[in-house]
Amino acid sequence: MISKNQLKLLRALGQKKQRKAHGLFLVEGEKNVLELLETSLVVKQVFATGEFLSEYQTKLAAYECVEASLDDLTKASSLVSNNAAVAVVEMPKNHTPKAQGLMIALDGVSDPGNLGTIIRLADWYGIKHIVASRDCADPYNPKTIRATMGSFARVTVSLLDLPEYLDQANIPVYGAFLEGESVHKTKFSPQGILLMGSESHGVRKEAEQFVTDKITIPAFGGAESLNVAMATGIILDNLRRQHSDV
Amino acid sequence: MISKNQLKLLRALGQKKQRKAHGLFLVEGEKNVLELLETSLVVKQVFATGEFLSEYQTKLAAYECVEASLDDLTKASSLVSNNAAVAVVEMPKNHTPKAQGLMIALDGVSDPGNLGTIIRLADWYGIKHIVASRDCADPYNPKTIRATMGSFARVTVSLLDLPEYLDQANIPVYGAFLEGESVHKTKFSPQGILLMGSESHGVRKEAEQFVTDKITIPAFGGAESLNVAMATGIILDNLRRQHSDV
Repeated sequence: MISKNQLKLLRALGQKKQRKAHGLFLVEGEKNVLELLETSLVVKQVFATGEFLSEYQTKLAAYECVEASLDDLTKASSLVSNNAAVAVVEMPKNHTPKAQGLMIALDGVSDPGNLGTIIRLADWYGIKHIVASRDCADPYNPKTIRATMGSFARVTVSLLDLPEYLDQANIPVYGAFLEGESVHKTKFSPQGILLMGSESHGVRKEAEQFVTDKITIPAFGGAESLNVAMATGIILDNLRRQHSDV
Repeated sequence: MISKNQLKLLRALGQKKQRKAHGLFLVEGEKNVLELLETSLVVKQVFATGEFLSEYQTKLAAYECVEASLDDLTKASSLVSNNAAVAVVEMPKNHTPKAQGLMIALDGVSDPGNLGTIIRLADWYGIKHIVASRDCADPYNPKTIRATMGSFARVTVSLLDLPEYLDQANIPVYGAFLEGESVHKTKFSPQGILLMGSESHGVRKEAEQFVTDKITIPAFGGAESLNVAMATGIILDNLRRQHSDV
């Protein structure tokens, strides 16, 4: 059973301020918790149904587990639907990644669902690091973690001074704009930073000045725009296509 | 002001059964309502704030308009956030489109948000018709309409017997599977049907038998899958790239 104090902590970790104060975050949902167990992240506690605990007994042997009903777990978590498992996890130290290989930079992408989807995409396309302006969504927001579908464990997200980071990067910065060179024709370098802005503001001036190549996804119909996560996926596919045999 | 009877109708149209009974559906949100006015759809009524009504006075001259407060409109609609305009619209007659050009077929895609995003994508890539199995999300669900960001007006969605439709189609059927030929290497025909299954079940056997080419999006990292709308976008980009100069 979840104690009152535990419930209080689970609820508190729904808030950014509390996550920062405790140095902890939540991983919710069966798939995410199972992926979590494969990582080097420090898991403080796993709250789960008896069914989940017995099914994954071997994997969970090294962890502090608390059995709870599906009902109590769903109430305690931020997930709307049934939630068989929730883990409390230590936030890893945030290192600024070196600008090398293929990376993603996000400018003002404030929706946690979009950030989570972009983390999942980064993982699909084998990108390890995302750098993001400080006003982007919190990578430890439960909604972000949920949308990653387990990929949160394989991709780092660093909130930082984005213009400063781009200024110091010695690799091409491909900025997505409504007007730019078609991604079907751009000759991409094998190393580079894909810079995406928010749907409402696009890439802001402070970051735009460091863009080496403006790129765009050609449109063939009447829609005015694509969602930022969708655009990221389509561009990444074009980037990877040029430098692989598959 | 919205009368009691009008409010009752607006609420009722949130339900599929009621939409069918009335032959009406809702278009919510400023952008969607503005797009609606550019179409040949029959608009019964527009409920909007005084601000919206005066800003778009000329465009709205031919319509029956009801002024209401932002608060009342938000309460009456299914949108969570502020909603300055809602329109009640007649459902157009559903014609089964001829299998020609580039089309999308959906098998069991039941999430309204995903369907809406796919409609927006279809519009971006200049695809006019989507055919979908009868257990797909309702194209007139307010959540679907909202996710289209106005594209609902330029793309038709026909719910039908999908295996029967595919059986009679005389153009290639490109089915998305986790194992198939890479979309980077597939030689696409300029005409064809892109068949997408749901995230949980994939393309079902009944539809799979009509697939002429199994295709897949190459993965480079650890993620196991992509969301169905995301996968649709990436494949459409590959399809269009091969048959255009942009």
